[in-house]
This record gives sequence, C-alpha cells and structure tokens, in this order.
Amino acid sequence: MHACKPKKAGHIAVDDDAAKQVYVAPGHYDEYYDFVSGGFSGQVSVYGIPSGRLLKVIPVFSQNGENGYGYDENTKPLLNTSFGFVPWDDSHHTQLSETNAMYDGRWLFINANNTPRIARIDLKTFRTAEIIELPNTSGNHASPFITSNTEYIVSGSRFSVPADYENGDVSIKDYKTKFRGCVSYIKVDQKTGHLNLDFQLNLPPFNYDLSHSGKNESADWSFFTCYNTEEAHSLLEVNASQNDKDYILAINWKKAAEHAAKGDFDWKACKYAHNVMNENTEQATSEILNKVKVIDTRKVNDFLYLIPCPKSPHGVDVDPTGEYIVGNGKLSANLPVFSFKKIQEAIKNHKFDGKVEGINVIKYEDALHGEVQAPGLGSLHTEFDADGNAYTSFFISSEIVKWRLKDCQIEDRIPTYYSVGHLSVLGADTKKPYGKYMIAYNKITKDCFLPTGPELCQAAQLYDISGNKMKLLLEFPLIGEPHYASAIAADMLKTNMVNFTLLKNNHNPYKISTAQEARVERHGNRVDVYMAAIRSRLVPDNIEGIKMGDEVYFHVTNIEQEWDIPHGFAVKGNNNAELLVMPGETCTLKWIPNRVGILTFYCTDFCSALHQEMQGYVRVSPKGSNTPLSFTIDDKLPSQFIVTKPTTQSGAAPTTHKR
Amino acid sequence: MHACKPKKAGHIAVDDDAAKQVYVAPGHYDEYYDFVSGGFSGQVSVYGIPSGRLLKVIPVFSQNGENGYGYDENTKPLLNTSFGFVPWDDSHHTQLSETNAMYDGRWLFINANNTPRIARIDLKTFRTAEIIELPNTSGNHASPFITSNTEYIVSGSRFSVPADYENGDVSIKDYKTKFRGCVSYIKVDQKTGHLNLDFQLNLPPFNYDLSHSGKNESADWSFFTCYNTEEAHSLLEVNASQNDKDYILAINWKKAAEHAAKGDFDWKACKYAHNVMNENTEQATSEILNKVKVIDTRKVNDFLYLIPCPKSPHGVDVDPTGEYIVGNGKLSANLPVFSFKKIQEAIKNHKFDGKVEGINVIKYEDALHGEVQAPGLGSLHTEFDADGNAYTSFFISSEIVKWRLKDCQIEDRIPTYYSVGHLSVLGADTKKPYGKYMIAYNKITKDCFLPTGPELCQAAQLYDISGNKMKLLLEFPLIGEPHYASAIAADMLKTNMVNFTLLKNNHNPYKISTAQEARVERHGNRVDVYMAAIRSRLVPDNIEGIKMGDEVYFHVTNIEQEWDIPHGFAVKGNNNAELLVMPGETCTLKWIPNRVGILTFYCTDFCSALHQEMQGYVRVSPKGSNTPLSFTIDDKLPSQFIVTKPTTQSGAAPTTHKR
Repeated sequence: MHACKPKKAGHIAVDDDAAKQVYVAPGHYDEYYDFVSGGFSGQVSVYGIPSGRLLKVIPVFSQNGENGYGYDENTKPLLNTSFGFVPWDDSHHTQLSETNAMYDGRWLFINANNTPRIARIDLKTFRTAEIIELPNTSGNHASPFITSNTEYIVSGSRFSVPADYENGDVSIKDYKTKFRGCVSYIKVDQKTGHLNLDFQLNLPPFNYDLSHSGKNESADWSFFTCYNTEEAHSLLEVNASQNDKDYILAINWKKAAEHAAKGDFDWKACKYAHNVMNENTEQATSEILNKVKVIDTRKVNDFLYLIPCPKSPHGVDVDPTGEYIVGNGKLSANLPVFSFKKIQEAIKNHKFDGKVEGINVIKYEDALHGEVQAPGLGSLHTEFDADGNAYTSFFISSEIVKWRLKDCQIEDRIPTYYSVGHLSVLGADTKKPYGKYMIAYNKITKDCFLPTGPELCQAAQLYDISGNKMKLLLEFPLIGEPHYASAIAADMLKTNMVNFTLLKNNHNPYKISTAQEARVERHGNRVDVYMAAIRSRLVPDNIEGIKMGDEVYFHVTNIEQEWDIPHGFAVKGNNNAELLVMPGETCTLKWIPNRVGILTFYCTDFCSALHQEMQGYVRVSPKGSNTPLSFTIDDKLPSQFIVTKPTTQSGAAPTTHKR
Repeated sequence: MHACKPKKAGHIAVDDDAAKQVYVAPGHYDEYYDFVSGGFSGQVSVYGIPSGRLLKVIPVFSQNGENGYGYDENTKPLLNTSFGFVPWDDSHHTQLSETNAMYDGRWLFINANNTPRIARIDLKTFRTAEIIELPNTSGNHASPFITSNTEYIVSGSRFSVPADYENGDVSIKDYKTKFRGCVSYIKVDQKTGHLNLDFQLNLPPFNYDLSHSGKNESADWSFFTCYNTEEAHSLLEVNASQNDKDYILAINWKKAAEHAAKGDFDWKACKYAHNVMNENTEQATSEILNKVKVIDTRKVNDFLYLIPCPKSPHGVDVDPTGEYIVGNGKLSANLPVFSFKKIQEAIKNHKFDGKVEGINVIKYEDALHGEVQAPGLGSLHTEFDADGNAYTSFFISSEIVKWRLKDCQIEDRIPTYYSVGHLSVLGADTKKPYGKYMIAYNKITKDCFLPTGPELCQAAQLYDISGNKMKLLLEFPLIGEPHYASAIAADMLKTNMVNFTLLKNNHNPYKISTAQEARVERHGNRVDVYMAAIRSRLVPDNIEGIKMGDEVYFHVTNIEQEWDIPHGFAVKGNNNAELLVMPGETCTLKWIPNRVGILTFYCTDFCSALHQEMQGYVRVSPKGSNTPLSFTIDDKLPSQFIVTKPTTQSGAAPTTHKR
C-alpha cells in the first residue's frame, strides 16, 4: 500500500485485501462497464469496474477535439438545435435501455440540462447515434428516465417558463400566471431506437427535479419530484424552501398515452431539432420539427396525482420490486418511503386531500409505507440491492446510510470523502440489481488526490457491499461531474462489438475504396479532395491549384483492412479540428485556406514505424491565379500510385480525375 | 486479482505483489505526477503514479467545454494564431523546466504540431499561462526541448516549406530549391517564464524530427534527428527511406546565440501570435508579432555539425551524464551511441567528411561510442536510469530492451502490449533520474481493455525497474496519444499550491466583491451583467430588458471564501460553452440571445444541498421593445439583497445601478 504522505483528514483505514479486490492485472478485463455522466463536460465517461480506469470518453453534447466530434462535417449536425449550433452542454443522467426491467445492452440515453435535449448512444459502437431537442422545456433535469421496456423516455423541465407556443415576452413577475411546467414522453422505436416526441404535459409551474419509472406492478407509472411548489422566481434558496412539503408527481403514463392517442390534446406550434446519425454513411442529418401534442392537465387529469413529500425533494427512487418509492427531501429530517399499493388504494377509493390546478392530491399518510428516522442530513439519492436493502447518500453529513426497505431500520453507515451527491449500486434500476459494488459520486474532493491547482476533479469511491457492512475499496478521479451512472456487466456488451464498419459496409458518398480512386474535384470555388489513408501514406500527398477563397473539403477514407489501425488527418492553420478516421470509414473536414503558400498535412494518429512519413503538402495560390489543379504522387511508386495529373483549373461542372 | 475473462493474447503473468505496488489507498497520495502529452486531444493529461489514475486534463491547444477553456472571453485569446482562431491542435512533447539539469517545478512546456506553437503551463495553477506561435515552421515536432537551465526552448520544423518571408506560391516540385528547414530558439525569462522567439536557423530542407539538449559537459549543445535527407516531397514512406544514413544535427546553441547577439542575422518579416494570460486578471491577451532574426546557415555555420545516423532516426536521447547521445534509427538494425567527447575531438581537429550546404559533416566512426547490435526492430526512443542503463522502445518488435551505456550490451528485454512508441523512465531527462518506474506508452491497444467500439484508447504500461529485471505492474488507458511524458516527484509540486487566486488578489476589471455590487449595465447594444455566485444563489437572478440584437456579457465572480467551492454558469441556447469559476475568480461569457422569451441560467457545478435552487431567468424582448432594463431579487431577503430596480432602457452612456 502506497503512501507519498498520509493526508491530514484521516480517511478510514482500508484492509489489506482492498488492493487485490480492485486490481485488474494485465491480460484480464474489468467485470463491469460503468457509464458515468460527464456533467459539465457534456460527455459520458466509461470506466472499468473494479479498477476505476477510464476506458473512453464518449462525446455527446460537447465538441471533442480528440476525435473531431462536433467539428467534422459528419458529426456537426448532431449539435444543431432550434437555437442554432450549440457546442457545449451539461450532460446529466445516464439510463441503459431495458427489456422487462433488465438491461438489454442496446442503448444508453443521457440528457442535456442547459439547451434541453436527449441523446441516444449506440452500445455497439459507443457513439452518439441520435439527439432530440425538447421544446417548452428549460433545464431538462428530470430526464431521461426510461420505462421498464424502454417504451418511453420520460423527461421533466426543472424550470417552469412560458411555453414556446405562448408569447414569452412577459415579465418574470408574472411567474404564477404565465409560467408552466412541462413533462415530455418520448417514444423509442423498439427496432431502431429512434426517438419521437409523442406528447407533452402542461403542468403547474413547479420545478420538476428528478424522476424514475416504476417496475413490475408499478411499470405503467412515472414518478417525479417537484420542488419550488412555492412558485418563486428569485432567490430560490430562500423562497423555494418555505413549504414543509413539496410533492411527488405520479403519472400513469399508459393512460396518458391513451389520451394522446385518442385526441385529448392540442397540437402546439414550437420548434425543436431532431438529429440522427446514419449508420451506413456515418453522416448525421438535422431536421427542425415544428409541432407537438400537448395535454393540458388543467383539463385532462385523470391519470396523474400529487403526493406530498418533505422537503424540497431531489431524487425519487423506485426499488427493484416496484413497490417502494423513496422521496429524498434535501431539507427533510426523515426519509419518506411511499407504497405503490397504498397509492393505488387511495386512488381506487377516491381518497384525496383536495386538488392543485385540477390534479388530485393524495394524503401523505395514505401513501406512506414508513419513514427512516433521522438518517442523516441532506439526502439526495437512494439506490437498492437485490436483498431488500436501500442505500441513501447524504450530502451535508457526507455519508451513505444502508437501511432496510421492509421496516425502514438503519443497518450501517459509512463516511464519504467528501460531500456525496449521487451513488450507484450496480444495476440498481433493474429488477435484479447486481449488488456487489456501490459507487459514491462525490461533489467535493478537497485532499482526496494530489492537488492540481485551483481546479480539482470530482471523485468516485468504490465500496464492497457484498457483506453486511459496507467496505471502502478505492478512490478514483472523474471527468466533469457525475450526475448519475449506469453500470452493466461487461459480458453483456463485449459480444456486441463485432464487425465494425468495414469498407464494404461504408456507403458514405465520399468514400473511396482504393488509393487509385483518390482525386481532387473542383466545383466552382468548392474543392473536394477524395483522400485515401493507409500505412504509411496519404493519397494524394501533393496538391496544387487551391486558391484563396476556396472552400476545401477533405474526404478521408481509411482503407486499412485491420480493425485496430485508425488514421488521423490535420491541415495547418485550420479554424477547425482534425479527423480521426477508423478503418473502413470516411470522414470529412472543411478547410478554408487563409494564407498563400505551402501548407502541410499529416496523419495525427501514430500508425506504423513510418507514421512520420505519412504527410503531404498543399499549395495555396492567390485568388485568380492560374495555377492548375493537380495532385502529384512520386513516380518511383508501383503503377497504381503513379499520378501526375494536372487538371483543368476550375469551372461549374465537376472535373473528376480517375486513373 | 480480477478476471472477467483472460484475454486471448497471453500477456506475461504478473506476480502477486503487483497489486500492492500500484494500489494507493484512500487517505494516501500518489508518489509522482506524470504529465502525459494528449497528442491529438491537444491537451496534457496528469496521471498519478503508481496508481495510473487520471487526476486532471489541462486544456492547452484545444477548446475544452468542461471548464469553458477556449470558449470564454478570458481564455479565447490563448488560441489565437496568425491564421486566426484555431480551436484544436495536436500536442506533442512535454518538458519540465530545469535548473542545473534538475527539475525545478516551475513550468511545463508542450508543443503544438499542426499550427506550430509552444505553450507554457504554470505548475502553481496547472493552467496554460502562455502560447507562442512559431513562424517559418510546419509540423512543430522537434519541440519544445529545453536546455539544462531552461535558458532556451529549442524547436525544429518537421516539414521543410518555403519560409513565410519568401513567396510561398511555388510548385511543390521545386522542393529542393525553394523549401527550407527551420530551427527556433525561444528564450525563457527566468523570472516570469515569458517566451521570446530569439532567433531562427535557416537549414537544409530535411525533416527535423526530434531533439534533446545536452547536460553537464554537453550543456551548450542541442541535438536534432533529421530524416528525409533525400529531400523527397511525396510518398515519403518510400522516397524518404532510401539513404542508409540520415543525420543528427548538433548545434552549439551558445555560439548560435552569440551570433544572434552580435548581428550575424537578417531581420525577416513574418507574422506570429504571442498570447499571454495575465495572472492578476485571468484574462489573456493576444499580440501578433511581425519579424524574427534569421541566421542563414549557408553563410554562418561555425556552430553546427552533421553526424551520419542510420536510418530515418526518430528520437535522439542524451544520457544523464551528457556524454552519450543515442540515435534511434527507425529502419536501422543496430542502435548507434555517439560520444560527445569524440564529437568535440573531431571538431577540434577539423576532421570532417565534407560539407552539406556549408555545414561540416563528422564521420560516423569518429563520433561513435558503440552500437547495440540487433537489439530489436523499429527503435523509437531511449531513456535512462541513474545507474548507467538505457531503455529503448521498439515499435515493430513490440518490446523494451534494457542495455548498458558503457559497453552497449543488452541486459534484459520485456514485451509490451502492443506496439510501444514512447517510453519514460521517471526523471530520465535530468542528470539524476528517479529510476524506480518505467512507463511504456503504447500506440496500439487491441484487447488490453474492455472493447469500446471501433475507437479504442491508447495504453500505458507501468514497470518496476528497481531490480535487474524489468517487471510489468499495471496497464492503464490514456486520453489521446502519449507522444511523451514527464514525471515529477509529488513533493516538488505540492508545496507550490498554496494561496490560490483569492478575491483580494483578483484584479479583473469585471470583478465584484459582494453581491451588493451586482448590476446590469447597457452601453448601446452591449449589455454587461456583473453577477455574483455564492452558495446558493446567482445575483441578479431575474433580468429583464435584454433585446434581440444585444450582445450580452455575463461577468460571473465566484465570491466564495472557501477554496474548494467552484461555481458554474450556463445560459440556455448559447453558441458557446459554460463558465467554470473558481473561488475568487471572475470569468466572462459572451451570449447573443437569438429567441424572444424567458431563457434560463443556473450553476453547473453542484455546490451545496441547495445547488438546484441556484438558478435564474432572463427575459429577451424583441428588438425595439420598450421593456426597461431591470434586475430583481426577492424582497424577503436580508437588506443587502433587496433589489428591485428598473433602470433606463438604453443609451450610449453606461447606466450603472448601485445599491
């Protein structure tokens, strides 16, 4: 066990087995993939568990120079919104697709909190496959929680705002009358995964914070926490912390969908983007849609109920059986556990405690299974194992408390370093959690790791929960902020990953299959360079006849047959990033030359002992110059590479140069 | 020891102690910081050793949404170049500052390979403090190697191109006559670290690949590898692999600097950016410079020599004593070791083997200490321990070979998984390497980790080299591509990091020190929002009177007194990123609203149990609307927060609203 120096703040001692428990020797794999929200990084980080090693950053909502995501022509449309191109967002909650309340290994979903969107990541490729924007929504926080067969993604607006289809130019002081909450139901195509905003609910102007869907008996229901039931619009710290109880909103989504199907809605005009990656071409397209079905819950409200919940609740978590619903009141002394059966009973018996804007309110006591008494301070989230235990994170008292669902009795507690936000018991949102490990995602790190200037990473802590007592094993640093995480057994995904895009499956219109097809075409001031990358050359590697004022598109196809040989492409002085091109794929980089002279390009990803030789030159001539378009490859080469073809200079019609 | 499943390709077995050797228990620190080049990520990754945990990504040459780097107004100027704003680059070689050939813990330097630049990172803050562009340079690869007292940073151009001060609109076929190589000497201010391009050398049109400076006796010298001495300009894979020997270029930089001081140069016109972060305001400024001293080595050449080196050499590495210079010929069967004493002897005796463009060539045999015979295939880099041993990476045979400098005899060899590029013996570029650990930086990963789609991370492997035999301990994944790495004992930097920017040291012109100073000012169509962030509120949190067509600048000051409480700031629908504001700092975000209505903003970095309450609204009215400028804070607040001030609508003169 290593020690540069013990830290001042004494962590609890770790036993001698911890090192062995988390060590994954060379030649072996981790047991679980852990998909961790990148928070303000906008991405998803994939860690191996138990080692805590960062296996990959999947770019989702933010540009990522490392692989040209959001810079190249293929992926740029994914970041389009009704507000235009948005290069960054705040990714929040991960959700793995499920079939019958068990992970099926197909997709990972994550929401953007700032400019409201939901992304689907394909778990065959670990790439963002689709992003849909949500209209009438601000702070897409209670999102993207799935139903137990991934029928719907459920999404609530943390901010209430005037709906996009209303006149939004109103005073903020008119909050109570002009602002509205919104929950969206996005249908998932079971075959393709494609997302379709089916309908939205127009709701009271609370803040809809988090959600979870039911399971088994409660599978037709979604649950949302509401805070700011005070309907305050400034200094919420004080003004939204007045009520002793806020609400959990319980929605029978099946019944809501029936309303949406049978016409109990209004079509409302509003703009939102829907961006899809074509997996045959690896080119994304973006469409702006312009209407949505809205159910006004002031008029249609036989499918949703409010349950009082102390106080400013954050997480709402449903246990593996679907019976228990935990409301994590940030400012509450006790932790309430609600019973799905009791809620159903109250509804059946029409036993309500009045209405809020037409929505029936169930009495706290009538919905309550029990309360965990004084468990800690600042409860945020609760997760579950397969044995009837719950684990709750407490931000203020910096600890995790294990308690029994059956009788709400506390079984164990363990400190975290330092304030814990989310926690994750592996597989806790399925009907059979893996258990075994729990991970605390801590918001404040202080002296957990070597200092790195004023900006410190946030930290995860891995615990063994296979015994009665929780046992700390490992601390590991994170990228951005871990708002949530979803872990899946490695065996479920490993088998997915065969037959990556090969050249024969590549239907990109700019693809070339051999170096002989490499060419340069001019169409007016647009120049298309069809380039091949293969160890250890870029073809063509000398290009002349580019003029100032041209718009140059480098279409680089990696024609390698071996699956682990990516190539990169960069050109000097580019107001853009690079391309990182996987074997068999074609990527396109836009380049607007802004200097006369010889500029250089090269492969950016070390690929062979002669990688440094994989380079080329492009001559940029002044606008109006008569330098002919040409591309030249050394004539000492085998015949298929002999190319010294000056071409016509320019013209409206494409001039294609085949050999 | 964990095993999801053993991998097909059998790694060598690891002994039972390996887990304990690399485990750093909670409550303890890593022993070393390892600064690893991010390669095509454009950044620097900081790992803890021996744990292999990623402690931080320091953004340098690429935009980084995670902390707004390259998006906010403070840091955007750092990415300016003579080509305009360049949002991405390919970072390559790390170098720690040294005093008397030992690390001094002040700065880390790294080069950009695509649009040629050098960055200085301040090791007090782990932030990019300065970036200088290099004119007349393409593929700034042989860079940024420092001299042993950090007098100079040395940088060579991998591509030869027509110099910026020549007419560059020439045919690539005129390579031999019109293209030139370039090496730059950048002076480092010993007090501030500021960089100043002192002089450049105009050199034969070879490719200058890598460099290292001498130590002790050889401290006044820089050594560069040259490939493509064939002066080919296309298909270098073949055409630059013709000569049996290329060269090492040895430059007496002290003598060169004397020439530069006494006027043996021409001032040449060329444009290059010099960008500096002001540490009092945390605002960067960018200046475009326009001339440089160039020494033409065809005329002045009594300070540099060519030494033949087999074949297409990549790394040139100087041992801790300064006597041995290893040339790593990528295509060479043997590994040559040159002697500094012998080189000096040949120079003293004027024993040369002709000239190349005026530069004396020393005979291979006259410079040679010895050759390591048939050590492996594809040698790339050599590093050293403190006991007279060298360690060379072999890309093609995927192994590291340990050999003795004294007699060039091989002592041990160990396979890597898979093809190794760089390797790093901790502290190997000082006169007293730490030894203890060696890290292989592998270019190809295949099945080292759980699969992550077509795109896999590159891998590091940590070895124990404290005994006679090298021992594999750990594999850990990396971000981007590790072109080089520099490790420093944690104790050297930890003490640096005290007294971070506090509010009192913040001299940013947009700073406010208390929430009472928060205000909104309009100057024509420019609106400045002076905002305070403190747990758990943004002040002001309601803003009205913003119009379409306005340019809004949010200046957010984090007025926390506790050093570990950052706040973030994001506003909906922004073609920009977020701000991540450390305690005491002020950051500025530009926002051009593009929709009428109520838009929302919030803190993006979880900061307290009431973080979700830390939010606000901004009303955007149509252009020409008469909504007055105002900001409103709830009147239930203590008096210092009571603000309900409508203000005059607009006007040329600033309208400041104090309370």
